[in-house]
Amino acid sequence: MIDLPFGIRLKTLMEKRGPLCVGIDPHPQLMELWGLEHSVNGLEYFARTIVELLGPVAAALKPQSALFEVYGSAGISVLERTLRDCEDIGTISILDVKRGDIGSTMSAYAQAYLGQEAPMRADAMTLSPYLGYGSLHPALSLAKKENRGTFVLGFTSNLEGPQVQHARDENGQAVGTSIVNQAGNDNSYALKNGHWGHVGIVIGATIGDALRNTDTDLSKLNGPILAPGFGAQGAGSSEMRDVFGSALSQVLVSSSRGILQVGPGNNDIVSEFHRNLDAVDRVLSSNNHL
Amino acid sequence: MIDLPFGIRLKTLMEKRGPLCVGIDPHPQLMELWGLEHSVNGLEYFARTIVELLGPVAAALKPQSALFEVYGSAGISVLERTLRDCEDIGTISILDVKRGDIGSTMSAYAQAYLGQEAPMRADAMTLSPYLGYGSLHPALSLAKKENRGTFVLGFTSNLEGPQVQHARDENGQAVGTSIVNQAGNDNSYALKNGHWGHVGIVIGATIGDALRNTDTDLSKLNGPILAPGFGAQGAGSSEMRDVFGSALSQVLVSSSRGILQVGPGNNDIVSEFHRNLDAVDRVLSSNNHL
Repeated sequence: MIDLPFGIRLKTLMEKRGPLCVGIDPHPQLMELWGLEHSVNGLEYFARTIVELLGPVAAALKPQSALFEVYGSAGISVLERTLRDCEDIGTISILDVKRGDIGSTMSAYAQAYLGQEAPMRADAMTLSPYLGYGSLHPALSLAKKENRGTFVLGFTSNLEGPQVQHARDENGQAVGTSIVNQAGNDNSYALKNGHWGHVGIVIGATIGDALRNTDTDLSKLNGPILAPGFGAQGAGSSEMRDVFGSALSQVLVSSSRGILQVGPGNNDIVSEFHRNLDAVDRVLSSNNHL
Repeated sequence: MIDLPFGIRLKTLMEKRGPLCVGIDPHPQLMELWGLEHSVNGLEYFARTIVELLGPVAAALKPQSALFEVYGSAGISVLERTLRDCEDIGTISILDVKRGDIGSTMSAYAQAYLGQEAPMRADAMTLSPYLGYGSLHPALSLAKKENRGTFVLGFTSNLEGPQVQHARDENGQAVGTSIVNQAGNDNSYALKNGHWGHVGIVIGATIGDALRNTDTDLSKLNGPILAPGFGAQGAGSSEMRDVFGSALSQVLVSSSRGILQVGPGNNDIVSEFHRNLDAVDRVLSSNNHL
């Protein structure tokens, strides 16, 4: 049994190591850049090398399940070993699976990724709420009980996202806003202890003024925000400050290609991680001086 | 390479065998009813027995991925064998995975479940559109190319579903309605050949007047409708006719517990399947007499 709530564990590690999470994204092109074949062996080398090199320095690593699933059960075996490596090396694993279902099926997904004995257990999993935030309850409650975490999709920066996420419910609230608010409710218990709750939100760093346009208030979320899209072709400092405002200190920036494209050479990848982290830190510190 | 489009294959088999799909849902309680342990061996016996007994009579079988994932890579191996059994025995497999992501990650999910060489390839997969219908494009287009199919979540009957699915976009259209319409657009190419397209929709049989309330018109979908929730504690004939109206002939009813709870005895499960199919047929034929 994990002895500290996810909110405390993540926040502590973000304070110690900085708010940068590295996506373990074994995309075919990235594996080619590493000189690897598209094989289960290549996959295993790629994923476990990242944990070995970045596990000691990164607050969190985020394996992308789709890119393991494509290899079938053999890929899932590698995912299991990758997740155990994360445990052993002492970094937080956020498994990007974007699961969502109802009732006993949702319970099975929760058990599969947050259960104490589950072969694919991670510190946290991502969730997709097309069936309504409430349908995710089995995962949210198991996460809380197991001192693990969740990240529910809120606002994403792909072009087609707003069609669903900005649609208005019967109270005139945007779908994404309602999800942020419900997560905040579920996290409120942790406020009195001064730590984050177990429900994080995924918000793209490049969504521009979407939160303002939908009157989304992050101030009551009281949980971590997983933000892909920073750096390189993504959001810069001013965009980040513009999107997240005073919630910037809750943001865990997620980056993958920008760091991993330098290849597996020991120093390269670690210094690229630190170079990216410095950029993230500059955003946060400039915020402090606002 | 599969030689006929999914829409033709499914429709042909539904006409020949009836519009009933059996969910391969290895829920713990169901496995207990079968006298099986919660083990990978129990899982394998459960799943492959269903294919062996019902594969020759059912138009489609629908394995629920969550209940295999919970066993980790060993469960995924069983899922792979179950899907190959479906191919060998000549029934259509609809893998219920409810995946949804963007860009190259969505492409990986498509490849994982619809790719010709993928260990977990199925005839069709279910998709979840929280990131917008358009984000599913990699799966929709691969399905079309491979003569496989997709079922996109539209309207579900769980209490929390409407919060997202009934929310209104900037044109005042409900999220679920917009998804049905976009699926219809993607299926329109098949109209001129008089068959269904590759994009099916999931609509719960117990959603009551949700389609009417959201002005959802199924008449231009031109694809199959996967409908859980018929029978026992679910929808009866009048409810089914009320929900689906003139699109009733496109409905593939999905049932699991109602059939599987009788246990693995050869005759029991097959006669329970036929008993359920008779009930489904009565709904459809009474519709013909409206």
